[in-house]
Amino acid sequence: MEPQLNQEVIKTALAHEVGAIETDAVIVGAGPVGLFQVFELGLLEIKAHVIDSLAYPGGQCVELYPDKPIYDIPAVPVCTGQELTDNLLKQIEPFGATFHFGQEVTVVDKQEDGRFYVETSKGTRFLTKTIFIAAGVGAFQPRLLKVEGLDKFEGTQLHYRVKNPADFAGKNLVIVGGGDSALDWTLNFAAEGPNKAESVILIHRRDGFKAAPASVAKMRDLCDKYEMQFIVGQVTGYEEKDGKLTGAKVTGSDGVTRVVPLDMLLVFFGLSPKLGPIAQWGLEIERKQVKVDTEKFSTSTPGIFAVGDINTYPGKKKLILSGFHECALAAFGAAPFIFPDKKIHLQYTTTSPKLHKVLGVESPVFD
Amino acid sequence: MEPQLNQEVIKTALAHEVGAIETDAVIVGAGPVGLFQVFELGLLEIKAHVIDSLAYPGGQCVELYPDKPIYDIPAVPVCTGQELTDNLLKQIEPFGATFHFGQEVTVVDKQEDGRFYVETSKGTRFLTKTIFIAAGVGAFQPRLLKVEGLDKFEGTQLHYRVKNPADFAGKNLVIVGGGDSALDWTLNFAAEGPNKAESVILIHRRDGFKAAPASVAKMRDLCDKYEMQFIVGQVTGYEEKDGKLTGAKVTGSDGVTRVVPLDMLLVFFGLSPKLGPIAQWGLEIERKQVKVDTEKFSTSTPGIFAVGDINTYPGKKKLILSGFHECALAAFGAAPFIFPDKKIHLQYTTTSPKLHKVLGVESPVFD
Repeated sequence: MEPQLNQEVIKTALAHEVGAIETDAVIVGAGPVGLFQVFELGLLEIKAHVIDSLAYPGGQCVELYPDKPIYDIPAVPVCTGQELTDNLLKQIEPFGATFHFGQEVTVVDKQEDGRFYVETSKGTRFLTKTIFIAAGVGAFQPRLLKVEGLDKFEGTQLHYRVKNPADFAGKNLVIVGGGDSALDWTLNFAAEGPNKAESVILIHRRDGFKAAPASVAKMRDLCDKYEMQFIVGQVTGYEEKDGKLTGAKVTGSDGVTRVVPLDMLLVFFGLSPKLGPIAQWGLEIERKQVKVDTEKFSTSTPGIFAVGDINTYPGKKKLILSGFHECALAAFGAAPFIFPDKKIHLQYTTTSPKLHKVLGVESPVFD
Repeated sequence: MEPQLNQEVIKTALAHEVGAIETDAVIVGAGPVGLFQVFELGLLEIKAHVIDSLAYPGGQCVELYPDKPIYDIPAVPVCTGQELTDNLLKQIEPFGATFHFGQEVTVVDKQEDGRFYVETSKGTRFLTKTIFIAAGVGAFQPRLLKVEGLDKFEGTQLHYRVKNPADFAGKNLVIVGGGDSALDWTLNFAAEGPNKAESVILIHRRDGFKAAPASVAKMRDLCDKYEMQFIVGQVTGYEEKDGKLTGAKVTGSDGVTRVVPLDMLLVFFGLSPKLGPIAQWGLEIERKQVKVDTEKFSTSTPGIFAVGDINTYPGKKKLILSGFHECALAAFGAAPFIFPDKKIHLQYTTTSPKLHKVLGVESPVFD
């Protein structure tokens, strides 16, 4: 677990430090709308940094339904969440946005010079003229194993992600879950290799998996060879001794509860979104949504815009195509914060030589 | 020329006639936004009739820049106006909209039952619960040959389109223009065939064409065989005798003006958009744009919505992607006019079995 320093002290100490990234725009969220915000800012020659709690772009489209078809992206009769993301990534390529994955924004603090100091859970720091909240349903966080009192072991013996696999080598592991993450780490630690555990027990509530069939087959093969164990059941309690977690109480489908001894408990129940610290930024909120106007999609704090599923206004529908429109108007709304002396005109990608230059395409010659 | 009957008489006589098409929605304009309006209405199970002044879908995208690349359609890194139109047509296929091409709306009249009586320049008549104006820059009309006094021959000896080719057979024709329409009709009337003219003279301001090279080659071949003539020059005046147009005064690149005798003058200068009769519908207008709210994109007349380039509101940018968003909210805004007793919920194309049914796709089974 990372040491809990006093937030105020960190903030004051770092805000004025040379190390903070100075930028025109920070986008919070790398889902489809956050990605398209890069594009709309790019057309106005505004460079952006993008922060996301996930380790990859695409947001809920990729996290929740990467392979399910979407039918209502205009002019795209059908695409999957992953294809949508890939197309948007291709579209924003010319604009060289910088991505900061696997971290959430923890601090937003308005500076005296009008800029915002932004800090993430990984300690990345920014001084930015504008912020675009494109956080959708919120930051994706691991779903927790709900057993009372167990949370005190989080970060020591209870883990929801693997930061350093070597920490688990040679240990007695209990892994809980039935998806790809659970299976992949099970194979990683049970099979021969540099991080081989002393023992691995996989626990899942049923004898069926939402994972690659090849991984499941490999796992069953390891069980047949007594290299690991698979138990159908649910973790319903735990045992401890001298402040150490010593075992998980596992209730099987037969209703019988057994104690499974362990050194480390790894839980992979997938991710679920949380609005998280955005609720604490001092923005006007209505039913967990950030209130914006429909002219610039500005929040109640000038310089902070909100686009996509996280915002609300009269008539709001949580549609990706609405988010795209909001990005366009928010970019124009933000321009005066970045270029206070420049008048921004709408130009068309079809005809503007200037936009062709920023897009990196040749201006065709027409009669 | 069609007889000019008293509009009021026609309107009153026809409004209550059985022949009018009764429908839930009429969309004025078959450009990208009008097409996507079909989609958004379709998801709410509202069927639409679409009217456009052009003979084909796509609006200004196809009329003005069919082959020029567009870069700012979200998730479509690059496409032409024609490709955009084709993709939208594919996307709206499940919804069976009826298209009425080559006609403009001439009459919009609110009925006592709350519906609108709509009539087009071709006499197509509707009784509709809602209207969606997606007319972009306006209805495309032929660009006129600007020679003072010449307009009095329009419809008799001066023509901007060919309705019935047989009317021109056996006549002495002067055709003006350098695009595909000018070339196609030149070949049609100059070459052997049922509509062969007595003589054909093609006039264009320069010896270069914006037309299919094969057509240009054929035209030059006909000139070589003395089957027709091509003159570089511009029509700068005309001659008449006894109220009949007898000749066009053509000023050549040498500055000399010659009279070219003719029976019929055909002009093909392309099309240009005109706001047209929409300005007379009694809607609140601001700088030639229709004022709408940003909740439902309703005009000042309840039941009439305006989407895309033709509307205005604070922050409005004339972007296709904004039109798409406006279509979605306008569809939800219209639903109460069509289903007054039904509560409409937002559903997602990714997950809703009901939307899968209206889209004509199978609902996948997920664990």
